[in-house]
Amino acid sequence: MRLVYLIPGPMSRGPLGPGELVRRRAVLQRSAFPGTEVEVRDVPEGPASIESAYEEYLSVPATLEGLMALEREGVDGAIVGCFGDPGVDAAREVCRMPIVGPGEAAMLLAAALGHRFAIVTVLDAIVQPLRRLAWSVGVLDKLASVRAIGVPVLELYRDLDATAGRIAEVGKRTIEEDGADTVILGCMTMAFAERHRELAAGLGVPVVSPAHAALKLAEALVGAGLTHSKRAYPVPPKLARAQP
Amino acid sequence: MRLVYLIPGPMSRGPLGPGELVRRRAVLQRSAFPGTEVEVRDVPEGPASIESAYEEYLSVPATLEGLMALEREGVDGAIVGCFGDPGVDAAREVCRMPIVGPGEAAMLLAAALGHRFAIVTVLDAIVQPLRRLAWSVGVLDKLASVRAIGVPVLELYRDLDATAGRIAEVGKRTIEEDGADTVILGCMTMAFAERHRELAAGLGVPVVSPAHAALKLAEALVGAGLTHSKRAYPVPPKLARAQP
Amino acid sequence: MRLVYLIPGPMSRGPLGPGELVRRRAVLQRSAFPGTEVEVRDVPEGPASIESAYEEYLSVPATLEGLMALEREGVDGAIVGCFGDPGVDAAREVCRMPIVGPGEAAMLLAAALGHRFAIVTVLDAIVQPLRRLAWSVGVLDKLASVRAIGVPVLELYRDLDATAGRIAEVGKRTIEEDGADTVILGCMTMAFAERHRELAAGLGVPVVSPAHAALKLAEALVGAGLTHSKRAYPVPPKLARAQP
Amino acid sequence: MRLVYLIPGPMSRGPLGPGELVRRRAVLQRSAFPGTEVEVRDVPEGPASIESAYEEYLSVPATLEGLMALEREGVDGAIVGCFGDPGVDAAREVCRMPIVGPGEAAMLLAAALGHRFAIVTVLDAIVQPLRRLAWSVGVLDKLASVRAIGVPVLELYRDLDATAGRIAEVGKRTIEEDGADTVILGCMTMAFAERHRELAAGLGVPVVSPAHAALKLAEALVGAGLTHSKRAYPVPPKLARAQP
Amino acid sequence: MRLVYLIPGPMSRGPLGPGELVRRRAVLQRSAFPGTEVEVRDVPEGPASIESAYEEYLSVPATLEGLMALEREGVDGAIVGCFGDPGVDAAREVCRMPIVGPGEAAMLLAAALGHRFAIVTVLDAIVQPLRRLAWSVGVLDKLASVRAIGVPVLELYRDLDATAGRIAEVGKRTIEEDGADTVILGCMTMAFAERHRELAAGLGVPVVSPAHAALKLAEALVGAGLTHSKRAYPVPPKLARAQP
Amino acid sequence: MRLVYLIPGPMSRGPLGPGELVRRRAVLQRSAFPGTEVEVRDVPEGPASIESAYEEYLSVPATLEGLMALEREGVDGAIVGCFGDPGVDAAREVCRMPIVGPGEAAMLLAAALGHRFAIVTVLDAIVQPLRRLAWSVGVLDKLASVRAIGVPVLELYRDLDATAGRIAEVGKRTIEEDGADTVILGCMTMAFAERHRELAAGLGVPVVSPAHAALKLAEALVGAGLTHSKRAYPVPPKLARAQP
Repeated sequence: MRLVYLIPGPMSRGPLGPGELVRRRAVLQRSAFPGTEVEVRDVPEGPASIESAYEEYLSVPATLEGLMALEREGVDGAIVGCFGDPGVDAAREVCRMPIVGPGEAAMLLAAALGHRFAIVTVLDAIVQPLRRLAWSVGVLDKLASVRAIGVPVLELYRDLDATAGRIAEVGKRTIEEDGADTVILGCMTMAFAERHRELAAGLGVPVVSPAHAALKLAEALVGAGLTHSKRAYPVPPKLARAQP
Repeated sequence: MRLVYLIPGPMSRGPLGPGELVRRRAVLQRSAFPGTEVEVRDVPEGPASIESAYEEYLSVPATLEGLMALEREGVDGAIVGCFGDPGVDAAREVCRMPIVGPGEAAMLLAAALGHRFAIVTVLDAIVQPLRRLAWSVGVLDKLASVRAIGVPVLELYRDLDATAGRIAEVGKRTIEEDGADTVILGCMTMAFAERHRELAAGLGVPVVSPAHAALKLAEALVGAGLTHSKRAYPVPPKLARAQP
Repeated sequence: MRLVYLIPGPMSRGPLGPGELVRRRAVLQRSAFPGTEVEVRDVPEGPASIESAYEEYLSVPATLEGLMALEREGVDGAIVGCFGDPGVDAAREVCRMPIVGPGEAAMLLAAALGHRFAIVTVLDAIVQPLRRLAWSVGVLDKLASVRAIGVPVLELYRDLDATAGRIAEVGKRTIEEDGADTVILGCMTMAFAERHRELAAGLGVPVVSPAHAALKLAEALVGAGLTHSKRAYPVPPKLARAQP
Repeated sequence: MRLVYLIPGPMSRGPLGPGELVRRRAVLQRSAFPGTEVEVRDVPEGPASIESAYEEYLSVPATLEGLMALEREGVDGAIVGCFGDPGVDAAREVCRMPIVGPGEAAMLLAAALGHRFAIVTVLDAIVQPLRRLAWSVGVLDKLASVRAIGVPVLELYRDLDATAGRIAEVGKRTIEEDGADTVILGCMTMAFAERHRELAAGLGVPVVSPAHAALKLAEALVGAGLTHSKRAYPVPPKLARAQP
Repeated sequence: MRLVYLIPGPMSRGPLGPGELVRRRAVLQRSAFPGTEVEVRDVPEGPASIESAYEEYLSVPATLEGLMALEREGVDGAIVGCFGDPGVDAAREVCRMPIVGPGEAAMLLAAALGHRFAIVTVLDAIVQPLRRLAWSVGVLDKLASVRAIGVPVLELYRDLDATAGRIAEVGKRTIEEDGADTVILGCMTMAFAERHRELAAGLGVPVVSPAHAALKLAEALVGAGLTHSKRAYPVPPKLARAQP
Repeated sequence: MRLVYLIPGPMSRGPLGPGELVRRRAVLQRSAFPGTEVEVRDVPEGPASIESAYEEYLSVPATLEGLMALEREGVDGAIVGCFGDPGVDAAREVCRMPIVGPGEAAMLLAAALGHRFAIVTVLDAIVQPLRRLAWSVGVLDKLASVRAIGVPVLELYRDLDATAGRIAEVGKRTIEEDGADTVILGCMTMAFAERHRELAAGLGVPVVSPAHAALKLAEALVGAGLTHSKRAYPVPPKLARAQP
């Protein structure tokens, strides 16, 4: 199967550059099942990073364009490369192929691993958007807490050990103070640092990388021949009339 | 106080034309308290009508631009003129003045009128977005149901009596089958038909027009000197740095 | 419009005396829209202050009498002047005009300002009655916490700066420990101290005065031509038969 | 142990007369464990029957007086003889002995009998008060529905077979349409008709009489040496100061 | 009435020996109403103590056999002697007599005593099973917390004063940190230490012994002629066909 | 990776015989990713089919033995082959490898496909156990309904077209009456009939086979290097001491 991980912003023109797309592709491809081919692309316009509802909205129109183009191209499924799953609901309206949100994927896998999961993310500003996402996914009952490390997305890689240390520290609080038994990394840039295994070893609980979770959920859906319900996500009426 | 009702789409260039903006302004101004001055404007681009998550997203970027411009202009508060409250959360991040969503306003007033309210809207496609809005507003416990009349936004005025008849019929089902004791008109075009009083008389329960509800909530917030919490809706960090 | 704020106890015969009614009227009238005329009255019997379920019940019979008399007098709407909204449900059964409870009004406005609000009230004894009120209003999902300052109603004005300091301290805990982004003053005597603006400045979040919230909600309902659903609050059958 | 069933209204001066109190006492005494002595009393003033929130409130002051007098008399526990449990929360503030509400007792026993219970009551007007009671009791999750037979309290005994037939009919709908597996009789006058056993046989599910449930819960609490938490129901501060 | 308290494991062959069954019977019989005869038995196989889901499951088959035998013997009701209520749902499928689980009984009585109860139990491993039990009982809304003292069942009696001290300490935290107003002892071995009265005196809130709660609920159900709904707990179809 | 699908009953000795295990293995292997090797086994004792809580419990002890043996054998993960996920929580306590329950897997995938899913199962007796499972999984908010076709497990294959017709009919009701947009087949024997694709085509919504869902979730977890949290599912203390 052929899957595309679409970054909802112009990452290749940002500070991390096109090399980061290549690197992220390698991370995903290494984790894929035999027979899965993964590509990583970005969209030509949108915010440099997404750490507010404002930026989520700005990222959506170009991302929806991109996803519709991918479907025309014939890919088997797509992952929207931002933990907040911006526009995933709309993407399901305008596409028939499976659209996977990493936030949703990570929460669903975490739900299979324990009783209460926490999300460790970048900034306080997206705590509430992530609580709302958990409600939309249907697993709010299992959300122990969302806590932020207080580091903006674009500064996460400045000192990766410091970032990982901060995640470990905040993750520990979600376990000890909020009752979490499973931790989700709540940001894709955080996830692609690939520190989840060592964090898990340190915290003593599973740490879910939304990058791997999204890939595995996409493979699972395509592999099982499933895609989202058009009764849940009907084609927008005016679009339906325009596409005979 | 000076309030602007901003339509998140290019209505003046659509089939209803600029006259509809003038008419809607008159409806709102008539209902305003002495001392309130209401304007109605639209944004230069976006979908012709909003009846899907897809169209909600497409409407947001231009609407956020418009709201930021209104704040710079010095208006006291703004209403986002679509029942789905598209981008209201983001608007609160980028503005300090009160931003009112008609969906939220109607649900909050309805919560003061009875135990369970229903929303009668246009199409099935927005039932779930409205359920999610009710969760965000915090009143999902009081939502009896969301039902659609099966008429697209742009056809609501084709035969207004037929539309009103269909609303009455569906509203009756929300009362008798879903236990609603209050009915909300779940679409601004529906609301500006100004049939809510006769519908209320026919149904025997309050019928809340989101147009009037939004105006009254905006007046209440401005009048009480209140605006949204910046702890709930922080300024996006990169924007904050850009605005010294 | 003509609104009456009815205090559910004999305040004019208590330690604050009739001057306090005059003062409260002035506070409300100053905050009213042009065209709104506010009166403040009390009822001839009942508890000196309400800080328990016991005293809530004792206050209700005379208050219901008073409200029915006000409706016969032709006022346009009434506010029950206690944050616990004692008897508001029953008042809606026996009246057709809008009956506003300050607790309900404050919670509904707070729901429009943030994601989670806290209530700072007088004594632990009314924490649970206020949680139940939040459920009745339909916004329990947004209630971060109810905390008490441990000062009885009748001692709030003894040292107003100390009281305000105590509210600020407890309010800070609701923000930092309970996740509140908006604070409600949970007692009318607390509210009429008129310190909400300075508390808001100190806490960095909106502080909702239930006095102003109730006035604004009453104006909004009367202004929009809305009153409570008689399907939700039917006239008591024996009363209905007695009133042909 | 000595228990008193206190009717929150002047039943002995109503159409059923003092004989009804004697009859109700006999019903309860027959069902009591050896060693339990039951008395039935009423209060001197209040509504003739309780079928609205309005009448619930009117019944409370005299009932609280009565309960405080009973505690001074030395009874071991009291039952408030109305299914809506009017004033039970306040009674627990002013008394130390166990105060049992029949609504609460019936719901707690029903929770032990199945997964979802329904309440069949007299009039639509008390559906919402009973939903709120279920929330206060803590078992709202198990409430399948509240349905009314449309017969006022004072007419229930006019044609008892017709009443029982109507209850059976409505009870059947709660089972078949609402998914109830257990039915509660939601009115004490309905309960004291003593038709619950034949209704249970007809419906094929347990039918809980709140009269017997209240008696058994009162015996259980007194027998186990338990009474309500004063941390949950503190003595009203002014009352506490008055009672050294 | 004749009630049997059935221990779901071979306690008489364990370290406490058959004398413990005699002692537990004496505790229960002392607390029973006149006319109630209590027996205590155990089952021939199963785990030495139950402090995990694993051991709960291992205890169930023999316990179900035992309960079916007791019903054939003609007892009036049975209590499954483990706080986790293992197999109680299945027992209700295969028996017609009332089956009482001490966890359920304690939670239902606690719900009548306050607004929020906590469970103090032995080990962290059963926190989640007890949360699930609270959901099944229908009272999860009232569960403030489940906390463990960190002492395995078989070591509870090693130093009873130390155990009681540890319970008091953890119970205090549930009151002060979690908002509990009522405490349940969440283990039968803990309960049969008979320290609940002194713990209640120390903590200032009711402390519910599940041993006494189970006995009182069993007496209440049998006394009221009630047993579980067969619509909720139908006889397993293959078993029904085998028992003509 | 090597996965085992363990049937929690002696299916090979039942009416379907050992051939059914071979057939089920073929179904799963065909659906597996390259590199996944699936085996199907059963346990030597237990009920002939599971359609009650009673039979769920009877199946658990032998199944837990089997799973522990599989882990010692070195398999990478196991699926408990019954839709009710009997003993999965206990299995996670005693195993470190991923244990997948088909009910949980189907609900988690369904949560990714729509807003509300329904479960179509065999008999009314397991409706409540499945509602409880949905709570444990954390997705009860998305459960539209559980409905039964009224055909016991062992009769499902008697007339497969009739069975499929009955499923289609009941599935249609879950969509039209309960608001489901996704349907789950709630029984493994139903699932292995392999009619889900034609049912989906007929109903116009995704139909999730728990057989394929379980396989895909197991592959996803093993593929992502994840297993359940030992903080959520600790090793039973006595077992831990026995296994140094």
